[in-house]
Amino acid sequence: MSSSLNGSAKGALLEMINHFVPDVLQTMAGLVAIPGAGQLDATQPTKVSGISGSIGLSGKVHGVVYTAFSENLAKIVAESILGATASDQDVADVVAELTNMITGNLKSRLCDLGYNCSLTIPSVVRGDEITISAKSASISVRNSFAIQSVSDPLVLHVFAILEN
Amino acid sequence: MSSSLNGSAKGALLEMINHFVPDVLQTMAGLVAIPGAGQLDATQPTKVSGISGSIGLSGKVHGVVYTAFSENLAKIVAESILGATASDQDVADVVAELTNMITGNLKSRLCDLGYNCSLTIPSVVRGDEITISAKSASISVRNSFAIQSVSDPLVLHVFAILEN
Repeated sequence: MSSSLNGSAKGALLEMINHFVPDVLQTMAGLVAIPGAGQLDATQPTKVSGISGSIGLSGKVHGVVYTAFSENLAKIVAESILGATASDQDVADVVAELTNMITGNLKSRLCDLGYNCSLTIPSVVRGDEITISAKSASISVRNSFAIQSVSDPLVLHVFAILEN
Repeated sequence: MSSSLNGSAKGALLEMINHFVPDVLQTMAGLVAIPGAGQLDATQPTKVSGISGSIGLSGKVHGVVYTAFSENLAKIVAESILGATASDQDVADVVAELTNMITGNLKSRLCDLGYNCSLTIPSVVRGDEITISAKSASISVRNSFAIQSVSDPLVLHVFAILEN
């Protein structure tokens, strides 16, 4: 991965999520996640449907990370992790925890690059046809990840502002 | 307001939002907001519909604040502030800004009480029949505010964990 955020912070963030999302999905659920092409300037608002985890970043990076799973994908991932039938609450817990792990990795990597920040607690937003925006963010990076044998992708969206 | 968070952090947070929400609505939009009874242990997930602003807190208080407006209420508030017809984007901007002001006041008050924290950037979530949860939060305080001549209340929900 890049050794600094100089030049292309957006590219570096995309590279990070392309690394950490598959890493966390593989480690936790044993599932292969293949990154799509990604968008360095994803339009706002972003559309999601199903169940989304959200965690804020505060410090030299200000921002918010959203993961978006369809209900079907979230259930498959949760059941892969738990090895049992997952209740609605189990599914929400798994989405919160995966969002926490992905964002925690992102935070560590940003810290290594001199962008120290702290994380908020995860929250989980659930519903059909939800739109999400963070207009004050100058960085809006998004990618979809195809999960083996599941038709709905996992979407990750990072809204951020870097301090100089 | 209370001079410490000892004893009843939940009560103190409810008291704060009961003060700041009407204050911000009055100052910014010239609207009177009357607090309801409030819930010190609001059940999760919380149900919202319309347009919600969200800001995270990170520091000696970890948490996330959600404001929830119906589309109708958000449009009335936005047009009161702008003095003109508000587009969908204007409405989202106003919700983000009001959430920022309410949460900023909350942050200052928490800081006065020794609970320093920083805020994340606001994000805006829009849709019908959305549920929101933050299971790791030990504090879940919610209140509804009746806005003069509008049938739909403004809802504010604080999910938080206090550090010892």
